[in-house]
Amino acid sequence: MSPKRLEAFSDAVIAIIITIMVLELRPPDGSGFDGLRPLVPKLLAYLLSFVLIAIYWNNHHHLFKLVERIDGAVMWSNMALLFSLSLVPFAAAWFGENPGTFAPVVVYITVQLLCAISYFVMTRAVLRIHSSDSQLAVALGRDTKGKLSLAMYLVALPLSFVSPWIGIAIVIAVAVVWLIPDRRVVRALTAEQSDAA
Amino acid sequence: MSPKRLEAFSDAVIAIIITIMVLELRPPDGSGFDGLRPLVPKLLAYLLSFVLIAIYWNNHHHLFKLVERIDGAVMWSNMALLFSLSLVPFAAAWFGENPGTFAPVVVYITVQLLCAISYFVMTRAVLRIHSSDSQLAVALGRDTKGKLSLAMYLVALPLSFVSPWIGIAIVIAVAVVWLIPDRRVVRALTAEQSDAA
Amino acid sequence: MSPKRLEAFSDAVIAIIITIMVLELRPPDGSGFDGLRPLVPKLLAYLLSFVLIAIYWNNHHHLFKLVERIDGAVMWSNMALLFSLSLVPFAAAWFGENPGTFAPVVVYITVQLLCAISYFVMTRAVLRIHSSDSQLAVALGRDTKGKLSLAMYLVALPLSFVSPWIGIAIVIAVAVVWLIPDRRVVRALTAEQSDAA
Amino acid sequence: MSPKRLEAFSDAVIAIIITIMVLELRPPDGSGFDGLRPLVPKLLAYLLSFVLIAIYWNNHHHLFKLVERIDGAVMWSNMALLFSLSLVPFAAAWFGENPGTFAPVVVYITVQLLCAISYFVMTRAVLRIHSSDSQLAVALGRDTKGKLSLAMYLVALPLSFVSPWIGIAIVIAVAVVWLIPDRRVVRALTAEQSDAA
Repeated sequence: MSPKRLEAFSDAVIAIIITIMVLELRPPDGSGFDGLRPLVPKLLAYLLSFVLIAIYWNNHHHLFKLVERIDGAVMWSNMALLFSLSLVPFAAAWFGENPGTFAPVVVYITVQLLCAISYFVMTRAVLRIHSSDSQLAVALGRDTKGKLSLAMYLVALPLSFVSPWIGIAIVIAVAVVWLIPDRRVVRALTAEQSDAA
Repeated sequence: MSPKRLEAFSDAVIAIIITIMVLELRPPDGSGFDGLRPLVPKLLAYLLSFVLIAIYWNNHHHLFKLVERIDGAVMWSNMALLFSLSLVPFAAAWFGENPGTFAPVVVYITVQLLCAISYFVMTRAVLRIHSSDSQLAVALGRDTKGKLSLAMYLVALPLSFVSPWIGIAIVIAVAVVWLIPDRRVVRALTAEQSDAA
Repeated sequence: MSPKRLEAFSDAVIAIIITIMVLELRPPDGSGFDGLRPLVPKLLAYLLSFVLIAIYWNNHHHLFKLVERIDGAVMWSNMALLFSLSLVPFAAAWFGENPGTFAPVVVYITVQLLCAISYFVMTRAVLRIHSSDSQLAVALGRDTKGKLSLAMYLVALPLSFVSPWIGIAIVIAVAVVWLIPDRRVVRALTAEQSDAA
Repeated sequence: MSPKRLEAFSDAVIAIIITIMVLELRPPDGSGFDGLRPLVPKLLAYLLSFVLIAIYWNNHHHLFKLVERIDGAVMWSNMALLFSLSLVPFAAAWFGENPGTFAPVVVYITVQLLCAISYFVMTRAVLRIHSSDSQLAVALGRDTKGKLSLAMYLVALPLSFVSPWIGIAIVIAVAVVWLIPDRRVVRALTAEQSDAA
């Protein structure tokens, strides 16, 4: 199987998912600024989801730069990731319409957990067919961030019972963890680019 | 004609089809978990359709890896496939809104049958312009799964008169048939990759 | 400027246009076959529009295989083509909802005329920066089909005053004209492929 | 990081944004020409937004042709650009429904300003990792148009208080500024193509 076409297909699906979320932002009735107020939580839910999906795209992009081969397990765990990501717009829409309420936050976190699990499973499927001294295995290393994200989502779920805002705060914290550049992968990629040059 | 651009265009269309289905999952009114209950059949219809379309993408991808040339007949049978696939979101939406009712299931199976027929016609159009000892012809072989799918959909249609659930069970069985890895194609592809290496 | 990225961008836009049309096919209320009846004209309008856009994609694909360079005029006439094509789903939706009525048919033909004009202008912009003995100039030749399509749409508009169905019949005839393979372009492309081999 | 995949992803997102705007053009009730009248301002808002987004795509395309490397800052400022662009359909829809009213015009200009700022930040992020004698740095030069656009949007905002139409006139003027070909970049690109040939 060719990693290139799987990468291109994933890019297309992620591009569509990240963009159709904005269809949720309907122009308000009337032409006054007041009409925008109920859109603020929707816009914030969109922004958060945009950043989370962009992080997946970014990680996917970094991972596949180092992937040398794929198989059916990678293909289908990647499809599971795309399916999970495709539920984000729905979860974000419900959450943005009902800010701070319990059920939408639980659904939102559950969908993010699904994405994190399927991404994690995909990395395991990829590692299984690469040698432990491959660039990919070295770059992923212990995958601290991946495991940390999983743990944080698992903690966020019960804590949402205490307050939905705690759950959301943890999801935002996951995004922040990923936005801090990962020196190890960057170093491996830079090395690879030097090799290619 | 260039197989590459047809492949890229098909990828884009399939990526859009597989993703816009999720627009059918509208956030429920209110913020309680109860609102999610009517979404369960829609989610399952989406999941089934996602898997079926992912199988087409996967098969398309495998097929076009071995395609050496295309002509107008391949181009237009491929367009017929994309058109048929584009009807899946509509059929899935109706089916998901009316789980277990007769007409939506018949329409759903008919659309799947259309996809299977156009894919089958496309493989014939491709085979016609490849020699019988080409990698493609060898990999497709007797195309047992393709023919079996067609037969299963044809059987599913009348059996839906007995019970719509039988029809759906057969569609799920088709998906399972394809999810079992096809050793012959995989072997041909692996051989090709070794040649390329 | 690079023809490759313009081609890829055009492919993506055309793929989206050809696919979002299907969003117009809303699942009927209720679960009976009766609900499908009002969808039949919509489905036919979708099918016709799908074929017409697929023809543009096909022609665009053939044209750009021979394009050696592009400039701002090509870029913007291509954008005008994409803009015109993007109006097809709207026109098809109105036409499919009101089959056989005058105004929707006139709007549909006008949109098709806009597409044909912008495609024609784009071919002129491309020819202007290719020598008259380039493969592109030879393949396009007198562009009989392009000019014929323009003429047919121009005739279809006034004849729609007599009967909207005459207008539609002419649009269908344009599609048929293009579906008949164009031997000259095919020959030039085949020659090119032989050269490349 | 690879500029190619960022470019492809950006292309896909921009292609989707530029196309989903047309979903705002709903077929009117009834089948008379009268129903089209309220669509005229929406169509004009769509046309203006299509041109503005096409300019971003064109500039992005020119910029990335000369980009030799990217980093996290480029990646995320590019994501900020895509996010800002994704708000254009919303702003255009509100503006097209309420032509000439104050709040929608202010939101429309604000969104355009966000796009211009994030594009400007992205060019700075790109320049920071290219030497001052790189083709990119030479082609961007003083980036007069980029800075002029920013200034024009900043002026357009307060002037919209006087009359929304002045604000819109300035946005149209920005589009015109960009549609006039930029000789310097074109020259650099032509030189590059000659080098490549």
